[in-house]
Amino acid sequence: MTNKLIYLDNNATTKVDERVLEAMLPYFKEEYANPSSMYNFAKKSADAIKQARGVIKDFVNAQSEKEIIFTSCGSESANTAIRGVLNYNKTRKHIITSAVEHPCVLNLYKALEKQGYKVDYIGVNSNGELNLEELDAAINEDTALVSIMWANNETGVINPIEKISQIIKSKNKETKFFVDAVQAAGKIPIDVQAAGIDLLGISGHKFHAPKGIGALYVNSKTMITPLIIGGHQERGKRAGTENTPYIAGLAKAAELAIDGLNYEATEIKRLRDKLETGIVSRIYNARLNTGAAQRVPNTTNIGFEYIEGELILLHLSDLGICASSGSACTSGSLEPSHVLRAMNVPFTAIHGSVRWSLSRFTKEDEIDYVIEKLPGIIEKVNSISPYQKELAALKALRGE
Amino acid sequence: MTNKLIYLDNNATTKVDERVLEAMLPYFKEEYANPSSMYNFAKKSADAIKQARGVIKDFVNAQSEKEIIFTSCGSESANTAIRGVLNYNKTRKHIITSAVEHPCVLNLYKALEKQGYKVDYIGVNSNGELNLEELDAAINEDTALVSIMWANNETGVINPIEKISQIIKSKNKETKFFVDAVQAAGKIPIDVQAAGIDLLGISGHKFHAPKGIGALYVNSKTMITPLIIGGHQERGKRAGTENTPYIAGLAKAAELAIDGLNYEATEIKRLRDKLETGIVSRIYNARLNTGAAQRVPNTTNIGFEYIEGELILLHLSDLGICASSGSACTSGSLEPSHVLRAMNVPFTAIHGSVRWSLSRFTKEDEIDYVIEKLPGIIEKVNSISPYQKELAALKALRGE
Repeated sequence: MTNKLIYLDNNATTKVDERVLEAMLPYFKEEYANPSSMYNFAKKSADAIKQARGVIKDFVNAQSEKEIIFTSCGSESANTAIRGVLNYNKTRKHIITSAVEHPCVLNLYKALEKQGYKVDYIGVNSNGELNLEELDAAINEDTALVSIMWANNETGVINPIEKISQIIKSKNKETKFFVDAVQAAGKIPIDVQAAGIDLLGISGHKFHAPKGIGALYVNSKTMITPLIIGGHQERGKRAGTENTPYIAGLAKAAELAIDGLNYEATEIKRLRDKLETGIVSRIYNARLNTGAAQRVPNTTNIGFEYIEGELILLHLSDLGICASSGSACTSGSLEPSHVLRAMNVPFTAIHGSVRWSLSRFTKEDEIDYVIEKLPGIIEKVNSISPYQKELAALKALRGE
Repeated sequence: MTNKLIYLDNNATTKVDERVLEAMLPYFKEEYANPSSMYNFAKKSADAIKQARGVIKDFVNAQSEKEIIFTSCGSESANTAIRGVLNYNKTRKHIITSAVEHPCVLNLYKALEKQGYKVDYIGVNSNGELNLEELDAAINEDTALVSIMWANNETGVINPIEKISQIIKSKNKETKFFVDAVQAAGKIPIDVQAAGIDLLGISGHKFHAPKGIGALYVNSKTMITPLIIGGHQERGKRAGTENTPYIAGLAKAAELAIDGLNYEATEIKRLRDKLETGIVSRIYNARLNTGAAQRVPNTTNIGFEYIEGELILLHLSDLGICASSGSACTSGSLEPSHVLRAMNVPFTAIHGSVRWSLSRFTKEDEIDYVIEKLPGIIEKVNSISPYQKELAALKALRGE
């Protein structure tokens, strides 16, 4: 055990930025009014929400503040978008998504299949890139919704959202396009108008706001039913007293993220590349799982052949290094990642894949430390790997 | 305008207790791990949630921690409970609720009526007390759900939950009983086992936790489908990365509320009664809207005949006094309160009703100040009331 903490799991969640906490504190303290109340005391709370809505509008480049709905998380954003579109117009029963979506989206589609929806899961190539021809061929008259993530949480691979939108709209103008941008927001620029997106979900805790706040963009031409029905909040699209502190915090985090996009694209990318090159060049059985695919700047997913990823993570954890083998939402499951399976990562590497995800708080000496320590860990895990023993026995038999 | 703040709208929302903020801060700062992650660093976050679940279990006296689901608000708790029960077993299509439920519940039932459910709205008497005979008569073989609030948000009137449960279960053992306890939790003791409740919703911001956190009790015999589908969090009953800071804050607020129940029942009640008596005894056209009904200790709803409540609130706001004329969720609407209409409050008083709701932070001198200032406000508003002018003209005609 150690007191050291090298946090390289920022796709699971991030540290709340101190400036975000500062922005929230007044609403935990003196400005506690219910923003819907009529008296003077509620004005600052109501103004904070109004201002935040403007910031999030700019963050995704929506046309109007009215297109922004605050939610409690990325999962709520996705559930609201998907079920909201399908419930508003129940005539069409066909949905298209990708095989590598986040579990929150995939599990929802599994549930919708039981309710009579037909869902096509578009595949990816060995780098994790979406098969656009398969997508194109799948769209038909009955397609209510296409739902594709902007960036994958496990691999960081970016989907060509604008091109996907063009494919969709050229095949069926009535089909709505939902983009889960949870792993893209804060890492690369988001422009819903340029990209031709109808609905887009984000989650604050992936870019240094707290866990428990998200937002959903719904363009003015897209109608949805609310998921949480009740009061008039969020223009009737999401009931519940507004979470003023977190909404103010989300806005501050979005401002910081916009300011930080260049740092993300240069410095975080440099550190990520250093980590990636350092690992792949030093460890003979390491392979980058995404090849030359375009990725968000902070993520790398590296497979270590013939060994168990969970064992690597355990040894890393003992050194205070946090990384992961898949989505935190599926942690504890020993099933190999559905994303890597969809990519046909060889079975020899799929169990030994580790995701590393950096943030603005990642320091160069932390990357150096991982590069220094990892080869010893892999050697240790290799030495007890039954695959390695069998491989050695096979080589001995063959006289290699 | 004034810098004074006398906050008597604690049924709309409450100030976050400083001790609650203290309990949350570590999870905004160093302990930011995703509680689902596998490494050592996530252990404290996971432990915080486990510990909080135990506290909320005790807060409502559930049998097991497994019966507690954390949600993002009271509205989400209600939506999860109601739609979860109905979706899990779709054969029965009859629902019973009261005419005075919170808008988040009533609006959901209006939506369910459009989906083919039959909903009976049980009435109340002029004190706001539920008509138990009407309830008894309404339950039948097809009744899937009875949904009754524990305490009313506008009047504070307490429903006899245990008796209601007995009525339900004696008529139909299969009928599930959901209790919206948002306005009861923290004000009076909650015991789901003694009261015979199947599902119960609470909201943190009504008892000094922040806005944006709630909980739902679902007893082990009651099955529900999740409202937010996705990851495995909350045992598959509510997807989304856990909001560790607010969950820890909710637990601290619940502990403080349990410690404060006696203060609530004695000191807050004393101040509430002082306010109530002070107003009713000094202002000739004031009437207590709830008669002798049993109420939570912090709430009083007083009608001022022949005048507009909104005008009173405006004058109060200018003095820094916060009160309200109905639910904050319906603020801005000039419709008279559905609760007071259900109580058949005379039309002469229904527009001029004001809700006052106290908290542990209410000071005696604040109550004295309101009692001192209110008669002048009422006199001013009376003087411009068209009702008053007509009444004076009528009296003059009659030679009174």
